[in-house]
Amino acid sequence: MEVNRPEVVAEVTALADAYEAALTGNDIPVLDALFWNDPHTVRLGAGEELFGADEIAAFRRSRPAAGLDRTRTRTEVTTFGTDLAVTTTVFVRDAVRGVGRQSQTWVRLPEGWRVVAAHVSQRPAG
Amino acid sequence: MEVNRPEVVAEVTALADAYEAALTGNDIPVLDALFWNDPHTVRLGAGEELFGADEIAAFRRSRPAAGLDRTRTRTEVTTFGTDLAVTTTVFVRDAVRGVGRQSQTWVRLPEGWRVVAAHVSQRPAG
Repeated sequence: MEVNRPEVVAEVTALADAYEAALTGNDIPVLDALFWNDPHTVRLGAGEELFGADEIAAFRRSRPAAGLDRTRTRTEVTTFGTDLAVTTTVFVRDAVRGVGRQSQTWVRLPEGWRVVAAHVSQRPAG
Repeated sequence: MEVNRPEVVAEVTALADAYEAALTGNDIPVLDALFWNDPHTVRLGAGEELFGADEIAAFRRSRPAAGLDRTRTRTEVTTFGTDLAVTTTVFVRDAVRGVGRQSQTWVRLPEGWRVVAAHVSQRPAG
């Protein structure tokens, strides 16, 4: 299982960028589409634990649409073979103190690359 | 890529249990061995961001060895094919208020199943 084949890294980096743009722009259809549409999808958010695509979709529709801007300070993409990637993003938000962290696991499924698990947290400033 | 083949789920569930026992018992050799020994391994902890196996190993040796007990309230294991799994654990710690959350991505590498990315966070009680 070859690690970091350049063409796979490029593909997943583009997806991570697309996700970031959709998140900060609150483009809910794109956010929905990039997550695996399955009861097993998990998203642990800064303030909630969501199990299954339905809970994740409901959350996206209930959160405030404004104030989502953030600045990424570090993004790492690691790929395994051609169908698996993990991405790590560290970020700061104007509106929130501390260090934001986002982890996503991407799998290339028959329908395309999808986030199958994600974890976002806000670490209090040290 | 078949989701949740029973024998793969059983294998990864046993590994998640072994990791939990090693974590709460502070069995550093086992914890080291279960994480991918590579500069690309990522562990976002409740209070730190660690990039690479060396930083993770150093962290394990510097943290207090006591007070690591925790009680898992929910654990989910989802597997894809035979070589990839994501695990999600929600937990409470006596010593810490709030909701603990742990995500791990496991890959079956030539050397065996390893955690290639992990994220632990403590969500303030609502």
